[in-house]
Amino acid sequence: MTPAEPTVYVSVIGPGQATGQEREAAEAVGRGLAQAGAVVVCGGLGGVMEAAAKGAREAGGTCVGLLPGRERAAGNPYLTLALPTGLGELRNGLVVAAADALVAIGGSWGTLSEIALALRTGKPVVALDSWRLEPPSARRPGDAPGPVRVATAAEAVAVALRLARSG
Amino acid sequence: MTPAEPTVYVSVIGPGQATGQEREAAEAVGRGLAQAGAVVVCGGLGGVMEAAAKGAREAGGTCVGLLPGRERAAGNPYLTLALPTGLGELRNGLVVAAADALVAIGGSWGTLSEIALALRTGKPVVALDSWRLEPPSARRPGDAPGPVRVATAAEAVAVALRLARSG
Amino acid sequence: MTPAEPTVYVSVIGPGQATGQEREAAEAVGRGLAQAGAVVVCGGLGGVMEAAAKGAREAGGTCVGLLPGRERAAGNPYLTLALPTGLGELRNGLVVAAADALVAIGGSWGTLSEIALALRTGKPVVALDSWRLEPPSARRPGDAPGPVRVATAAEAVAVALRLARSG
Amino acid sequence: MTPAEPTVYVSVIGPGQATGQEREAAEAVGRGLAQAGAVVVCGGLGGVMEAAAKGAREAGGTCVGLLPGRERAAGNPYLTLALPTGLGELRNGLVVAAADALVAIGGSWGTLSEIALALRTGKPVVALDSWRLEPPSARRPGDAPGPVRVATAAEAVAVALRLARSG
Repeated sequence: MTPAEPTVYVSVIGPGQATGQEREAAEAVGRGLAQAGAVVVCGGLGGVMEAAAKGAREAGGTCVGLLPGRERAAGNPYLTLALPTGLGELRNGLVVAAADALVAIGGSWGTLSEIALALRTGKPVVALDSWRLEPPSARRPGDAPGPVRVATAAEAVAVALRLARSG
Repeated sequence: MTPAEPTVYVSVIGPGQATGQEREAAEAVGRGLAQAGAVVVCGGLGGVMEAAAKGAREAGGTCVGLLPGRERAAGNPYLTLALPTGLGELRNGLVVAAADALVAIGGSWGTLSEIALALRTGKPVVALDSWRLEPPSARRPGDAPGPVRVATAAEAVAVALRLARSG
Repeated sequence: MTPAEPTVYVSVIGPGQATGQEREAAEAVGRGLAQAGAVVVCGGLGGVMEAAAKGAREAGGTCVGLLPGRERAAGNPYLTLALPTGLGELRNGLVVAAADALVAIGGSWGTLSEIALALRTGKPVVALDSWRLEPPSARRPGDAPGPVRVATAAEAVAVALRLARSG
Repeated sequence: MTPAEPTVYVSVIGPGQATGQEREAAEAVGRGLAQAGAVVVCGGLGGVMEAAAKGAREAGGTCVGLLPGRERAAGNPYLTLALPTGLGELRNGLVVAAADALVAIGGSWGTLSEIALALRTGKPVVALDSWRLEPPSARRPGDAPGPVRVATAAEAVAVALRLARSG
């Protein structure tokens, strides 16, 4: 309980139906975050969420899954803690609220909702082959900048940790 | 109480700090929706939300505002009904859940979160000068198509009503 | 749009499976609130919720239903506005957040959760044949007082309106 | 990762401003649950929540705090994981949704809202010097029975574990 450096929490977000490449990246990101002592948070289901949890657990780390439904059993088998919320897709907002920074890998509409909500609420987002977003013509001053694009899982981990710690 | 055609609900979403052009478009959309008998739903605050409410009310229609905070007084003065939620930015999910279809005008990160959540949950979105979104390289089969882009407020109203009714 | 006296919102809460006497009381409460110009809010389903909506509508008033699921069609036929939330039982918190005061009629565990959440967040509750609540032995100073018990629907309306207006 | 007996989750609920006796009981309950391998969940703040977390941690266990606000720093220092939700008092519903069973110690209105929501959604509640609840005269058939009253912390732990495991 010696409060050295406080633990940081990084949410890994991405589609529940992921490609092999996306799963590989998510597993590497989960592993890298856990090795650095970060808590990994995710939506608790399959695809990118499961791969990130697998990586974190295999590195001896912690992964929390915030599930959309009411059944704990819906969580993937790699979660350290599986928390049902009963909020449906609105649990995406909890995945954002629990994070100091987020890593987006690939992306479905659900992932995009998390990216946008994170940027709306001032949480940094690191994106690995995720959505490209062009704002409407009249950009409002003071809008948060978009996600930070990175090219590799290692870079995603490094940038996310830096941003999470400087939050 | 003769259940002729059931009432449709259309959420109008967009930034709280809007340009003159965005406000004009939102007012025209609110007016058009109300004239067609649709209930207008919005996030209850200023900018696009206020302009849509103004248009709806001036056409004799109904506009419901779902407010992020706990204070009803934060709602704009044109709302027929102002409902505090206390959910903060997570009330964006309620603006989506209450809608049969959505019209996005301009866009901030908050607006993008609503667009994405709507498409994630199968609600059609009509976009007037809003975000351009390019999915990641590995697009998942079965993903919902993106927002329907339109060029004018009149077109936004017509398309939104058609999509809301065919939902 | 002349802001005379601001509209008050009163939530009528009670079980979805209600006795004839509870339904009668709820209908009278909905009617009385609507006649006084209050907006009636409820959970949108059957029993007490439906009876309150019926009373409000037959008096020419407005009743908003905040539904637990994602389907508008689950709302009872007397709602002026039926808003799906997708939050499941957590929508009880929205029924509380939307209200200036609440009237509880009868009561199930769901009703009790609304009574408690209302008192927790400083909203007055009027109770007509509802739960009797005895606090634990060590009562904390500063706790809100309990619900105001009344004996008739007319008294419930009068007290709720007075408390809602003095909020 | 050998799925022996699955981990159970028990939420410990009670006032943030607690008496010495309530804190002592909460600490003993947190300790007993952790010694049995259960994950302790709480609302993350002071009083009963802090004491339960302290007991769990000192026994080498895990305590998750689901915070009402958006700031992780508001969590008490004994939490293994502190998760901000931004939902305000509606996070009470998450404390319920995450649990297989709940232990209520003492009680404020917030605690009562959790007890009621738990019983509404079929989660067993064990109560140690908490609210006494008398239902309205017309009790609905099929209503869940009330909380299980116990006299000591040890009994609370034993009964909660039994109910959580038989869920």
